[in-house]
Amino acid sequence: MRYARLSVDGRVRWGRVGETDVELLSGSPLEGDPEVVATVRRDTADWLPPVVPPVFYAVGLNYPRHIEHAARLGNPAAVLPDRPEVGYRANNALTGHRSPIVKPLEVEGRFEAEPELVAVIGRTIRHASYEEARESVFGWTIGNDVSARTWQHRDRTFWRSKNSDTFKPMGPWIETDVDALAQTTTLRVNGAERASFPTGDMVFDPFDFIVEITKHITMRPGDVLWMGAESTCRIEPGDTVEIEISGIGVLSNPVHLEGNHQS
Amino acid sequence: MRYARLSVDGRVRWGRVGETDVELLSGSPLEGDPEVVATVRRDTADWLPPVVPPVFYAVGLNYPRHIEHAARLGNPAAVLPDRPEVGYRANNALTGHRSPIVKPLEVEGRFEAEPELVAVIGRTIRHASYEEARESVFGWTIGNDVSARTWQHRDRTFWRSKNSDTFKPMGPWIETDVDALAQTTTLRVNGAERASFPTGDMVFDPFDFIVEITKHITMRPGDVLWMGAESTCRIEPGDTVEIEISGIGVLSNPVHLEGNHQS
Repeated sequence: MRYARLSVDGRVRWGRVGETDVELLSGSPLEGDPEVVATVRRDTADWLPPVVPPVFYAVGLNYPRHIEHAARLGNPAAVLPDRPEVGYRANNALTGHRSPIVKPLEVEGRFEAEPELVAVIGRTIRHASYEEARESVFGWTIGNDVSARTWQHRDRTFWRSKNSDTFKPMGPWIETDVDALAQTTTLRVNGAERASFPTGDMVFDPFDFIVEITKHITMRPGDVLWMGAESTCRIEPGDTVEIEISGIGVLSNPVHLEGNHQS
Repeated sequence: MRYARLSVDGRVRWGRVGETDVELLSGSPLEGDPEVVATVRRDTADWLPPVVPPVFYAVGLNYPRHIEHAARLGNPAAVLPDRPEVGYRANNALTGHRSPIVKPLEVEGRFEAEPELVAVIGRTIRHASYEEARESVFGWTIGNDVSARTWQHRDRTFWRSKNSDTFKPMGPWIETDVDALAQTTTLRVNGAERASFPTGDMVFDPFDFIVEITKHITMRPGDVLWMGAESTCRIEPGDTVEIEISGIGVLSNPVHLEGNHQS
């Protein structure tokens, strides 16, 4: 099943996505078993991030080939982790499928897309076993961990390098019936392939992270866990960036340059 | 005015806090002008964190004397910041006034309380001027940035050192009518004073941070900004830790040791 959140006549609505239509639901599938209350055409849908998480978890270095690459570029933190350690992103940065990624005027240097698998938690869990961690995942979506590298290297935290408004496209929907770790992640810019890698070729998988996190932390329905990327690529205003994970879907976003603003 | 969130008969209710009673409200004062619908006695209130923020911002090193202290202890990051840079905490860690701080069984070494002023945002703001930043603050509350130092120094991120469940007591309420930067912060353990400092003796004040954050980020009603601490102190199971900020109130929490759990 594919679940999405849409903006319909100015209201946020959950929907179940079919080939040509989206069935609008009476509530969240994370909180019960909602009924179908209306139908809209899929090709006119206004896609929102498929969930606004209570906590937005994000894994950093988690693909062996990405870590090797970062080490070659001189990143001293680029060593193979010996345990799954998670970080955070911020909800203000979320945006939906087809919405623009806005590059701030002040950004200099590399401005990059990072194609990521995202696990969406469906249960309240603490002290999860690996099997309970597997059962706790409601479904899977796609994230683009857009990053401004100069800020990332210069700042004390990732506050603006990874969390400026629109830097976290997520979507287009949550797929509940897929073996996510057996898929292929493909990154395209303006239709040209820029990277392709096995989605599951991770140091630690999502369930390893859930086991580790829930030793000390309660995870709740709607929490998301972004799993890191093996490859990244530069993007610029005017581009359209697409991330496909086979069996899940395609997350597509145009890149705009920030307009002038009144202060 | 003092606004709080209470648990009443298993429901989350906003309230306006008086000397002996709490007037329960029809909705959130952050979203309109709610009506009084009932009254409960203040001394029987079950206090929740006064807000669950869309984004939970937290300032690290922001008091000159705290930075000097950290530098003496050999923290290489302890240098006077030249601009306001913010980090994050996670909502799972929030707990209310009088609820226990639970020390995990696995924590070794220093387990500490950090007394912090918290700004609660009341408006949607972007590209704020200093004056707009001042006007955007709905009110002020108190936070305890409980920290497990060994984890903080050993881990790649603050995920468990500062974000384990119950590590972020916040409350007891939001005070809307106070000159927060002209107050005194006092930290007590079991009634004995362990630290006292001028609340406003910061490198950058809350409005400086809001100006900087909103250059790239939209802040929204309910977002919180924790402002860092000048002094900290050790806490242990069996203790009761109190943080008072004059003109706002007292946040009090007992410290428990984690019980055994079934895995």
